[in-house]
Amino acid sequence: MAGKFISENNVRFLLYDVLDILELTSYDYYQQHNRKMFDMVLAEALKLAKTKFYPTFEEMDRTEIELQDGRVIVHPAIRDIMQECGSGGWIGASFPENEGGEQLPVVINNVIKYYFSAANYSASAYPDLTAGAARLITSFGSRELIDAYVPPMLAGDWQGTMALTEPQAGSSLADIATTATPIDGTTYSIQGQKVFISAGDHDAVDNVIHLLLARIDGAPAGVKGISLFVVPQKRYDPVRKLVDNDIKVSQIFHKMGYRGTPSTELVFGEKGVCQGFLVGEPHKGLIYMFQMMNEFRLGVAISATGIASAAYYASLEYTQERPQGRKTGNKDNSLPQVPIIEHADIKRMLLFQRAVTEGSLSLLLQCSKYADLEQLVTGEQKEQYSLLLDLLTPVAKTYPSEMSIHSTSQAVQCLGGYGYCDDFPVEQHYRDTRIHPIHEGTTGIQGMDLLGRKVIMKEGKALTLFIEEVGAAIEIASKITDLAPYAEQLSKLLSQLRQVTDAKIAQRDQAGVEAFLADATLYLEYFGYIAIAWQWLLQATTANKLLTGAKASKRAFYEGKIVTFRYYFAYELPRTQGLATRLLDPSEITVSLASELFNG
Amino acid sequence: MAGKFISENNVRFLLYDVLDILELTSYDYYQQHNRKMFDMVLAEALKLAKTKFYPTFEEMDRTEIELQDGRVIVHPAIRDIMQECGSGGWIGASFPENEGGEQLPVVINNVIKYYFSAANYSASAYPDLTAGAARLITSFGSRELIDAYVPPMLAGDWQGTMALTEPQAGSSLADIATTATPIDGTTYSIQGQKVFISAGDHDAVDNVIHLLLARIDGAPAGVKGISLFVVPQKRYDPVRKLVDNDIKVSQIFHKMGYRGTPSTELVFGEKGVCQGFLVGEPHKGLIYMFQMMNEFRLGVAISATGIASAAYYASLEYTQERPQGRKTGNKDNSLPQVPIIEHADIKRMLLFQRAVTEGSLSLLLQCSKYADLEQLVTGEQKEQYSLLLDLLTPVAKTYPSEMSIHSTSQAVQCLGGYGYCDDFPVEQHYRDTRIHPIHEGTTGIQGMDLLGRKVIMKEGKALTLFIEEVGAAIEIASKITDLAPYAEQLSKLLSQLRQVTDAKIAQRDQAGVEAFLADATLYLEYFGYIAIAWQWLLQATTANKLLTGAKASKRAFYEGKIVTFRYYFAYELPRTQGLATRLLDPSEITVSLASELFNG
Repeated sequence: MAGKFISENNVRFLLYDVLDILELTSYDYYQQHNRKMFDMVLAEALKLAKTKFYPTFEEMDRTEIELQDGRVIVHPAIRDIMQECGSGGWIGASFPENEGGEQLPVVINNVIKYYFSAANYSASAYPDLTAGAARLITSFGSRELIDAYVPPMLAGDWQGTMALTEPQAGSSLADIATTATPIDGTTYSIQGQKVFISAGDHDAVDNVIHLLLARIDGAPAGVKGISLFVVPQKRYDPVRKLVDNDIKVSQIFHKMGYRGTPSTELVFGEKGVCQGFLVGEPHKGLIYMFQMMNEFRLGVAISATGIASAAYYASLEYTQERPQGRKTGNKDNSLPQVPIIEHADIKRMLLFQRAVTEGSLSLLLQCSKYADLEQLVTGEQKEQYSLLLDLLTPVAKTYPSEMSIHSTSQAVQCLGGYGYCDDFPVEQHYRDTRIHPIHEGTTGIQGMDLLGRKVIMKEGKALTLFIEEVGAAIEIASKITDLAPYAEQLSKLLSQLRQVTDAKIAQRDQAGVEAFLADATLYLEYFGYIAIAWQWLLQATTANKLLTGAKASKRAFYEGKIVTFRYYFAYELPRTQGLATRLLDPSEITVSLASELFNG
Repeated sequence: MAGKFISENNVRFLLYDVLDILELTSYDYYQQHNRKMFDMVLAEALKLAKTKFYPTFEEMDRTEIELQDGRVIVHPAIRDIMQECGSGGWIGASFPENEGGEQLPVVINNVIKYYFSAANYSASAYPDLTAGAARLITSFGSRELIDAYVPPMLAGDWQGTMALTEPQAGSSLADIATTATPIDGTTYSIQGQKVFISAGDHDAVDNVIHLLLARIDGAPAGVKGISLFVVPQKRYDPVRKLVDNDIKVSQIFHKMGYRGTPSTELVFGEKGVCQGFLVGEPHKGLIYMFQMMNEFRLGVAISATGIASAAYYASLEYTQERPQGRKTGNKDNSLPQVPIIEHADIKRMLLFQRAVTEGSLSLLLQCSKYADLEQLVTGEQKEQYSLLLDLLTPVAKTYPSEMSIHSTSQAVQCLGGYGYCDDFPVEQHYRDTRIHPIHEGTTGIQGMDLLGRKVIMKEGKALTLFIEEVGAAIEIASKITDLAPYAEQLSKLLSQLRQVTDAKIAQRDQAGVEAFLADATLYLEYFGYIAIAWQWLLQATTANKLLTGAKASKRAFYEGKIVTFRYYFAYELPRTQGLATRLLDPSEITVSLASELFNG
């Protein structure tokens, strides 16, 4: 039986009590759903996580993925998992019914993803990447493309990938060099090399469909000349037989974690017969990609949070069972040892993990709800949700991803020497999660996106909306005696956020864009603490309300929420002080620094 | 040829310009040494690091250590390394000449250790553990024990270990249960189990000498009943033939890093014929161990700093060579890409690593000099050095160990996706260094040692001495125009340190020892930032002085020092603000928290 890796109580609390996601079912598009249905879906997802994903969590890490005769050989359980995810409707969970999906809200789909990645992140990547690639096709591809490629992907028979990165173009997509030469209509001949393509080939599926960025001959330079293609590993020949499409796996990368998913280097069109099919219009590849980017980036952070969650519960279980030492100040060695959870420093490390994990999940589900609402409403309202989601995406991508490193590290620390060994899962969680601040846009890229684009777009309208949202939460909490001091603390910080932002913008006007963005990563870190504080204030407000008259069995849960909230405001939120000091200090150090000074 | 993993310029600057370690040669004990000799020794050590340690850095990580027929099989290069370290005098570098050593200062010995661990941490552990174990014997053992066991250890023929930890007694040494039953004089029959014993057995040496803690039959309970024994894997029989001593390797642990050194579980006396030889007097084992603890703990942090240093230079080299994107604000894609070191965010990540690594090394060499001076002087002076060393050891153990995690993580981040793969060494550095906040006393233990013991001992005399030392550095820097604002910043922080400490002591008197120590880890973190600021102020003062009239070739080095110092004070030191806020807040969260609240 699987150890605990997520809390259903917590998920239900966030979905129904804090976020009131049943509001979504009042819209036509989701009217066929209700709480009972959501609960049933999530219970099924958890069952799948426990019975199919979790059992091979360690094995997939230990079994080296191999490249044999040009084929990538992965763990045999992957075929079963892909088939289950296909037949059970999990790959198409958030797709419209008329595209063969279950038409579930993004927020529910992200809880499913959270369960799967908490159970076995590497395994969860296969169906997840497939859903992402299929979503690009249904969103922007022709009916013909959709009909040809999407059904076998949603069925789990074919793998989907994102083929963006090239050796010379990592974060700099403008430098993509893969070429697409027109053959006929929307068919192009593709030539180029891609690296770090997750699940770029493997033996658990019958075909692999790459969503690939390339440059059509004669296209404009830079990001405005990039187009999106479907490039299948096996394409249909004129009689609809699947034939080889000239894509070679030239190597697989050996990673420190996330080892159950192959990271491949692919060569397209070595023999000159690799065909790609244009998705949508020419030169709009990056625009299409960016329309899905919010969803992809939230997905990465959901996975980071899933891993942190699994590590948290593993360390919680250990600290409850492991006897060591006596209560501080008690030197009577004849007494039995106490479980280490009785030590204040261990409780601090557990509260840290819980604050990070449940705070991250809360923010991510909040953003997921915005993503849902954005699709359901129109006009001014639509713009508001869209702006909030755009603004918060780099924050919701980064805080969970970066803090998952620290959170899993504290899980390791709770286990001491055992935490460093593979007898327990936490060392793998620590290795697995290190990828998240790197893929789907590094933390540095997210910082520039937040400060250099999102905060200033539409004259700061998104930031104003965010401040209003947080302000509304503060307003409510300030009327509850126990929460008022915390509401006050966050209110001051919200004013400081405005002040810091204004100072940065003033710096741009005076010292230029490089100085403006030099500390964008720190601005993002600072923003993250505030966004998570907002979510904890919302959770505490809800828990405070529900505590009145709650059954004894429920009290511990709500009290636990409130103490974690208090921990966050007392221990974590003050970390903004040092960041604000730096952000308000206009002295330039990194900008003016000659790189030669690193020599010697 | 090895990539760069340390900077000789930096080591010379710290040893001779900042710390003036030649002062040590004015004492009789070190009078045979001079700068030329030190330089020669260090050049030899670096050569050994490059030619013997570095070449197998990756291989030792990739080659799984195996337990075959009860024997631990390690990388074949280990025998060569142990032999080289023996014949070259590296194991006995800091031992007195009359014990077969080179009588080098601790500070030089620690630079040697820094080189070896930067080149290949796993390999460096074998000679290092041997030196530590031999040092315990020469310090507290009988002439007979010394003569029998130390020479083959210093020669690299025999391995030494520390056998402290037991399954039920990790951080709680009071619960050690291994028994020692008197046989005859100082010979005892040993029975028990030890875990996580590094290099507890392997095939690169002819014998393994365990320095083992056990409890003599009828000994007092707790730490006052623990004795220290030499327990050899093979002992001398009456005709001085080496015979098996009944020690079994019951398993080896599989670790996420530090994989070139076996971590073993050992069973002593399964057949009832394991003999141990008492070191010193009965029941004084922990006292002996603690007399060496400062040295061992500095050693761990030296290794953490070595690893961070190697990761820093690997990421520096990558960022200088890897083209990606254009300068911020430049959207002309027809321009060639720039090396990523030209991006402000990358420079920030490099400065962070440099500030951590060179700040840590500086503090560690400062402490090493105190360790040397403590042995050279007498009376009041001796007490002063001893108190400073005692106070600073938990700080100098923890800041480098914890920050090495963050520093190697930033090295990974500089390389993006490549940093996550084993084509580059940084992912291994990240895994290797995670052990350091765990072994030789976890960070939690160090926090309680600092606040619960060192800060309050002798009515706070050690803290007063520290504040005077830092005050002296501030005094000098405050007279230099360029440095005066930084001196002022640190001066304020030093007053705050006193205030925070007083508040904690008041809390002890009012709320008890558990509340007093609940945030000891955060107090330690806070203290660490201040101690490193002190070292950077010393370095900046020296660099500022030497910059005047320096040759062009030297200017970049001194200017680089000053900019890193400025980075530290602008970006890192403000992080104390949030910590001080929490430490000055008497609200108890972790102390009063019922562990049941984690359920649900």
